[in-house]
Amino acid sequence: MRNLCMKVSYEGTNYNGFQTQTDGRTVQDHLEKAIKMLTGDEVKIIASGRTDAGVHAYGQVFNFQSLSAIPVERWAMALNTRLPADIVVREAIEVPELFHSRRSAKRKTYRYTVNANQFIDVFTRHTQLHHHGRLDIAAMQRAIKHFIGTHDFTSFASRNSAKTCHVRTLFDAYIEVDDSMCRSASRDQGVIHTYVTGSGFLQHMVRIMMGTLLEVGEGKKSPDDIPVILAALDRTQAGPTAEGKGLTLWDVDYSDHMKKTL
Amino acid sequence: MRNLCMKVSYEGTNYNGFQTQTDGRTVQDHLEKAIKMLTGDEVKIIASGRTDAGVHAYGQVFNFQSLSAIPVERWAMALNTRLPADIVVREAIEVPELFHSRRSAKRKTYRYTVNANQFIDVFTRHTQLHHHGRLDIAAMQRAIKHFIGTHDFTSFASRNSAKTCHVRTLFDAYIEVDDSMCRSASRDQGVIHTYVTGSGFLQHMVRIMMGTLLEVGEGKKSPDDIPVILAALDRTQAGPTAEGKGLTLWDVDYSDHMKKTL
Repeated sequence: MRNLCMKVSYEGTNYNGFQTQTDGRTVQDHLEKAIKMLTGDEVKIIASGRTDAGVHAYGQVFNFQSLSAIPVERWAMALNTRLPADIVVREAIEVPELFHSRRSAKRKTYRYTVNANQFIDVFTRHTQLHHHGRLDIAAMQRAIKHFIGTHDFTSFASRNSAKTCHVRTLFDAYIEVDDSMCRSASRDQGVIHTYVTGSGFLQHMVRIMMGTLLEVGEGKKSPDDIPVILAALDRTQAGPTAEGKGLTLWDVDYSDHMKKTL
Repeated sequence: MRNLCMKVSYEGTNYNGFQTQTDGRTVQDHLEKAIKMLTGDEVKIIASGRTDAGVHAYGQVFNFQSLSAIPVERWAMALNTRLPADIVVREAIEVPELFHSRRSAKRKTYRYTVNANQFIDVFTRHTQLHHHGRLDIAAMQRAIKHFIGTHDFTSFASRNSAKTCHVRTLFDAYIEVDDSMCRSASRDQGVIHTYVTGSGFLQHMVRIMMGTLLEVGEGKKSPDDIPVILAALDRTQAGPTAEGKGLTLWDVDYSDHMKKTL
């Protein structure tokens, strides 16, 4: 039995999230179906974590056990010809027996993208939240630094979170502004990419952080409110849950060994 | 009567081209319908030129006569709320009575994008041609320079071209490589953006130039074949017509006065 591990990109727009649901239309369903078409085997894949409906992935990771003798370097292309155009396997490697995409993950990075230009960009509209009105981006950049470190993120977790412990560590969190498509400084503020890297994330955590950062940008909250909201351990103190479509699971890091190969 | 001029972006994937067709589903139809919803008036808009089915625009320009008293700065937002999500009006200005989007155009720029990385990028798949296999990009860069200047482009025009004169002037033509998403130098060559700016373009001209440049990249033609193909005035000498989905009408320039305002 081989343990195969793959990196997959998907545009989540047309899916009901990553993980298999009773009402179907998930990325996992398509991947398992493609594996069955290729090998004849019914497998259950293990991903680094689920992504919500409408959320995208650049580097989602999954693994599964297989008896197939297909050489590992053929898998990506072979699956891609059996997958819809919005799901693309980018890499496949063989990993040790004990490797587990979720439990072995050391760090995950998410990217949330806000288009703060006056008009929607038609070419990237499925992966950006369009924000009307001015944002104080410098204030957002001060605010986001308060998230770095180890905190109880109860205020930034869905009330439906099934996790008993809400303590998570953020290794890094920063905002990058791409102003290459700005035409008028008075109306266009650029495309704002927010990257957060952590040991793990609670349900809706990045989206609630982002909804709160946007309130900072709009002047409804100040950067120094972030530590107060964290300390409150109360979801009602944070901002709204930003729309899923701006969120992309960007990358998953494993041990140094895995990092080199995946 | 006012002469209103607008700049519009659209993702052409779901449209039967820009210009009204008997079988519907065109960008022009949607724009005229939105104007009618807003003002009650039936108008015929004049664009800088048509774009083929599946071809996109970042900065298509159109104008029309209107009796509406709606202030010019309100038009873009007002139309956008009446347009599908893949058509966005980005700018509206009032222009002199004699301004004509097609006849007044001085220069047009097209961009053609080829993804030369190993795998399709799910996020930009609708606006990129994915090319399998190595490309000699340096050879393509030498080849494209032969197009600059005034030439008879008969070899690079659709055989259906209704134009009597095929002489056109290219002011500029160059290739830019974006390697920001490359993961492996041996398998990923980057995203190749080809920009061409000219006085005007014949039907399929940019797509045939691109199909020919790709043959140069593949080693099937040499850069020095371009002048020979141009001189032949024979469509069969050039390469195939590259797919429409990689092509975007990037910008249209008018006189210096128009350039400043639009």
